[in-house]
Amino acid sequence: MSGNTFGNLIKIHSFGESHGPAIGGIIEGFPAGLEVDFEKIGKELLRRKTNQGIFSSPRIEPDQLEILSGIFEGKTLGTPIAFLVRNMGGKPGDYEKLSQVYRPSHADYTWSTKFGFRDYRGGGRSSARETLSRVVAGAFAKQYLQLRGIKIQAWVQQIGNVESQVQQSFDFDAIEKSPLRCPDAQAESKMLDLIESLHKTGDSVGGIIQAKISGLPVGWGEPVFDKFQALIAHAMLSINAVKGFDYGSGFENVHQTGSQLNDEFVNVDGKISTISNHSGGIQGGITNGQDVDFRVAFKPVASISKTQNSVDMLGNPVEISIGGRHDVCVLPRAVPIVEAMAALVCMDMALMSLSNKI
Amino acid sequence: MSGNTFGNLIKIHSFGESHGPAIGGIIEGFPAGLEVDFEKIGKELLRRKTNQGIFSSPRIEPDQLEILSGIFEGKTLGTPIAFLVRNMGGKPGDYEKLSQVYRPSHADYTWSTKFGFRDYRGGGRSSARETLSRVVAGAFAKQYLQLRGIKIQAWVQQIGNVESQVQQSFDFDAIEKSPLRCPDAQAESKMLDLIESLHKTGDSVGGIIQAKISGLPVGWGEPVFDKFQALIAHAMLSINAVKGFDYGSGFENVHQTGSQLNDEFVNVDGKISTISNHSGGIQGGITNGQDVDFRVAFKPVASISKTQNSVDMLGNPVEISIGGRHDVCVLPRAVPIVEAMAALVCMDMALMSLSNKI
Amino acid sequence: MSGNTFGNLIKIHSFGESHGPAIGGIIEGFPAGLEVDFEKIGKELLRRKTNQGIFSSPRIEPDQLEILSGIFEGKTLGTPIAFLVRNMGGKPGDYEKLSQVYRPSHADYTWSTKFGFRDYRGGGRSSARETLSRVVAGAFAKQYLQLRGIKIQAWVQQIGNVESQVQQSFDFDAIEKSPLRCPDAQAESKMLDLIESLHKTGDSVGGIIQAKISGLPVGWGEPVFDKFQALIAHAMLSINAVKGFDYGSGFENVHQTGSQLNDEFVNVDGKISTISNHSGGIQGGITNGQDVDFRVAFKPVASISKTQNSVDMLGNPVEISIGGRHDVCVLPRAVPIVEAMAALVCMDMALMSLSNKI
Amino acid sequence: MSGNTFGNLIKIHSFGESHGPAIGGIIEGFPAGLEVDFEKIGKELLRRKTNQGIFSSPRIEPDQLEILSGIFEGKTLGTPIAFLVRNMGGKPGDYEKLSQVYRPSHADYTWSTKFGFRDYRGGGRSSARETLSRVVAGAFAKQYLQLRGIKIQAWVQQIGNVESQVQQSFDFDAIEKSPLRCPDAQAESKMLDLIESLHKTGDSVGGIIQAKISGLPVGWGEPVFDKFQALIAHAMLSINAVKGFDYGSGFENVHQTGSQLNDEFVNVDGKISTISNHSGGIQGGITNGQDVDFRVAFKPVASISKTQNSVDMLGNPVEISIGGRHDVCVLPRAVPIVEAMAALVCMDMALMSLSNKI
Repeated sequence: MSGNTFGNLIKIHSFGESHGPAIGGIIEGFPAGLEVDFEKIGKELLRRKTNQGIFSSPRIEPDQLEILSGIFEGKTLGTPIAFLVRNMGGKPGDYEKLSQVYRPSHADYTWSTKFGFRDYRGGGRSSARETLSRVVAGAFAKQYLQLRGIKIQAWVQQIGNVESQVQQSFDFDAIEKSPLRCPDAQAESKMLDLIESLHKTGDSVGGIIQAKISGLPVGWGEPVFDKFQALIAHAMLSINAVKGFDYGSGFENVHQTGSQLNDEFVNVDGKISTISNHSGGIQGGITNGQDVDFRVAFKPVASISKTQNSVDMLGNPVEISIGGRHDVCVLPRAVPIVEAMAALVCMDMALMSLSNKI
Repeated sequence: MSGNTFGNLIKIHSFGESHGPAIGGIIEGFPAGLEVDFEKIGKELLRRKTNQGIFSSPRIEPDQLEILSGIFEGKTLGTPIAFLVRNMGGKPGDYEKLSQVYRPSHADYTWSTKFGFRDYRGGGRSSARETLSRVVAGAFAKQYLQLRGIKIQAWVQQIGNVESQVQQSFDFDAIEKSPLRCPDAQAESKMLDLIESLHKTGDSVGGIIQAKISGLPVGWGEPVFDKFQALIAHAMLSINAVKGFDYGSGFENVHQTGSQLNDEFVNVDGKISTISNHSGGIQGGITNGQDVDFRVAFKPVASISKTQNSVDMLGNPVEISIGGRHDVCVLPRAVPIVEAMAALVCMDMALMSLSNKI
Repeated sequence: MSGNTFGNLIKIHSFGESHGPAIGGIIEGFPAGLEVDFEKIGKELLRRKTNQGIFSSPRIEPDQLEILSGIFEGKTLGTPIAFLVRNMGGKPGDYEKLSQVYRPSHADYTWSTKFGFRDYRGGGRSSARETLSRVVAGAFAKQYLQLRGIKIQAWVQQIGNVESQVQQSFDFDAIEKSPLRCPDAQAESKMLDLIESLHKTGDSVGGIIQAKISGLPVGWGEPVFDKFQALIAHAMLSINAVKGFDYGSGFENVHQTGSQLNDEFVNVDGKISTISNHSGGIQGGITNGQDVDFRVAFKPVASISKTQNSVDMLGNPVEISIGGRHDVCVLPRAVPIVEAMAALVCMDMALMSLSNKI
Repeated sequence: MSGNTFGNLIKIHSFGESHGPAIGGIIEGFPAGLEVDFEKIGKELLRRKTNQGIFSSPRIEPDQLEILSGIFEGKTLGTPIAFLVRNMGGKPGDYEKLSQVYRPSHADYTWSTKFGFRDYRGGGRSSARETLSRVVAGAFAKQYLQLRGIKIQAWVQQIGNVESQVQQSFDFDAIEKSPLRCPDAQAESKMLDLIESLHKTGDSVGGIIQAKISGLPVGWGEPVFDKFQALIAHAMLSINAVKGFDYGSGFENVHQTGSQLNDEFVNVDGKISTISNHSGGIQGGITNGQDVDFRVAFKPVASISKTQNSVDMLGNPVEISIGGRHDVCVLPRAVPIVEAMAALVCMDMALMSLSNKI
């Protein structure tokens, strides 16, 4: 019950503190017989790690993934797939000065109060390093979904007040070539300027990631409480720094009327479809065969080098400036995390739908 | 696994089709010994039922709740609390004409495809009548939370393009006196005009419900996947017609920077607090003792009397106009549903927190 | 978490106190499209109710089952199947005298201590009347299993010290014709004598129910913790008055050696089989295609009219004699309960096995 | 859903194949703040490993446990406790000859059929090496229970046809000094003779392990389906080679009457107790404060060096003799496994009972 498991039939059990021995997890419920493409998993880990172009750091090697069980002769066994990635272990000294302080908008205070103490090194379990386990599990789920013709693609739609003017269709492969994972080159240029200026002032910025799931069959999603959108929302709001989720017509179209937003059905060459997709691919919590598209709002990362006021564990006022290398904007790196969580939900829905009918 | 249960330690198992014999549920995991206030439960059912002021219908009696188990001598037994409300049973003829048609943006098509057939009478299980079970369960949870000093209040923040200019603090009791459950009388007046005009054209409209949870202790919420906001988001997106959720700084403040949005800690009379609440009362997925505030976006109801194009089950094009009495805007009636789901999440978090420490 | 749900993919959520308004439950996860045979369900309820031959009471009508949801046009909808049976409501006076007393080997004392108070009328939720919900859910599961060629049959193997000399094969239909559900007429005659003599002295007796599941495919059961036998054991030990469970070679053959008990594989007409079945149809927690056979030990019912010493709620010594009509031996009536729980496990295993392989 | 998790509020997620990289697990839901005694955990691993006295092998080092997360400064963090033990990796050649053969009463055939293929090396995930994860998790649970004054002790009660003549009370510490974990020295001597003779003929033998849980409070166990005994039975039947479970009066006293087996209540110095304990410490599925005692039947290990007939994967008849060092009797090593699983159930019940009352 303490919240480190996600999923119903395909589950990720996650573990690890950011500066403990390792981060990892167990993927439970994965069917037997999938030929695992480890190169693809490595690529996802690399996508999560690199923040291309912003800091002209040399190419970073992906975290070293070790598989502990569940795969034999290159195929999934149907047994738990356990994996881990060792943590590098920063210098203890770097963290001890933060051990007595509650960083603003971090989990230090809430975590300490809930559990009585905390692993203060780099945020411990509250660190976004935990998302590594999600990306590994999601990379497995993606391979399952690929067999069923399903593709999940996310991108950076907005950073600060710079919005991408996304066209209805664009080259998905172009997203990965963009340092910010933004398909609109003009917007991206402005985003880079914004990030650079905030980097100088020691500040940070959030934004919006948008995602599209295509190739879904009709009929996934479990009414009443486990509607497709409800599980996706749960998944997204479980990601660090996420503040909001919407799909289809979302928040932006609440001013429109029913006659404007209803998606009329049409028969296209013997196949029932809709002429519009304000429903975002889901009706009554169940996929309708159209693309599922959704948006995820991220707040700016809480770690900034600008000086802030706060208190220590005894309640004494302190001034802190969070040192070390921090991302000004995590959104480009969060793109594969959003995709991973969406992939886990989709695969879960696929397995749950196996028993729809007698 | 088929999605009719919500919760971990306190659960609602929901059942019922809108035109079957009854709607109801089982509340499982409710601790023993609560003196149940049935009048309060009745009031919540009435709140869900009435759409005051819009149609000047006489006062409507609440759905008749029958408790089947779990309460003895006025107190909860610690056993499952089963309950039901009988359905009135509309005239079959009213629905048969819709039995072969897929209504736009309804669940008819997805449901039929998923399960092979459907109860077409009034939407069957996909009808919002299902939310009745949520309101009953939420009314129990509210009584538990009240003992712990926690209050949950939602209101209508926006209908169509009319936004309430909510002040930082306002009279919560005033919300219930408002026919639209909107605390801003000027906005409400414009909302009523909008609803009336759409009523004439047979159209519908959505909007935004906002909610606040106050009195929460520090330490509720289960990292990593069951963060407080993740369970609230799951709860909200499971409600019919909901298209989005955000909390704290949400979607609207993504353009702001970390230094603007971080909530600095202060010591107020020996109690650690924050000077602002952009975090929306949650840090690292765990409550920090400040109010939790969140917003829920609703699309317009799909049932409109305006003529729409669609297809029947064979894929033939049809024109339909959905008759009967339909709400132009469901938001006022959705307010108690939002509160009920939030109450269930809060109580679940309360029970889960009992085992935080040795 | 409070234990009123059984199952993983097909679940029964049970509710009801023996003298509250109703006993019932929700069957969740039942696939859509089964044509329900209600006559069969009624027969199972009657099997649970009648204790034929022992008391020459006239034929008893089954408890009146009401279906509240989940079935439309005679078929399962894929939605929760809620049902209830109204309780007759004994005279309150009958129970008030027991309200302050802890009956020996009943749940009065443990229940009161756990929950702070209890519904003392007829045992409340601890009454075996609760098994009614199991029988209804099991009757649905049996209909699903029948489609897959699976049959579950239990019988009375031993009452007191009288053992049935069961032959390796016997006429299953004969079991139901036997008043005691014992296939060995000679043993049955002695059992009846024993029951009659205990009836006179106001005492009770237990025994052993045996069961066989035939027609199972190879491959059901989930290693490691949800082995087929583990879920069956869980199911059986959850039944009132059950004290033990074994299967295959069980307790009785622990003195034999590996070479005596191992089941050698043979090829019979191209089909792999075993020459013996000491494994009881399960190897490594997974069905091997042979019959699953198991035994369930029942203690004597705790309600006896013989005078017993006990204490009241204040700890004062009391003498009690439990009046009313009590079964001397519940085993014949427990036969359909054992079958129902086995059916629920089998169906659960069937649904879980849908995602074994890619 | 695929059965590698045990528990409700305190859970073990287990992973690993016997000849894969590692065996391990995640303990989820363990409260924060326990000072972990690693020496005790090491001792439990050693208890599981050594079969003292039977083979006069030198003292064996315990499997090397590595903790990956969940512990900081020697205390549990309230986060998942992940751990692993590396496998030694036998010579592949040893197993390849068995890769095409179905060993009698092993899981080879059922596993291959269920999942389409299997890790044939040493049984893969069906190997009893998996129980290592249970022992680690159980060792944590024991430390929690010790804080609450609860002790769990199991011993070898019977091997083959040699029964221990256990006295009502005996020196528990003596059990661990016994090579066979049998407290009756005379019986033990005969058991050793039996084991030696079977060792010579290449055969194996089973028996009965008995266990006692003392110090339990009144009120643990969740009616209806999660009765204390039901979860213990589930736990025990999930252990490799277990064929049966009973508790209290069990199978052996089914011939006795209600008046003989009912446990009359008495007031002993102001504390309600029972004069006998045929209930085995549980009434209505809830602990009554008396000792819980239960028995677990084990079949002989299936691996024997005696020649057996079987078939290969193509159904061709083969003769096999299973080489390598195999235990003639696993019961002494299974004692800590029985205790570990009982400890996990007890701790789960403890946590679940935190929300019994308002």
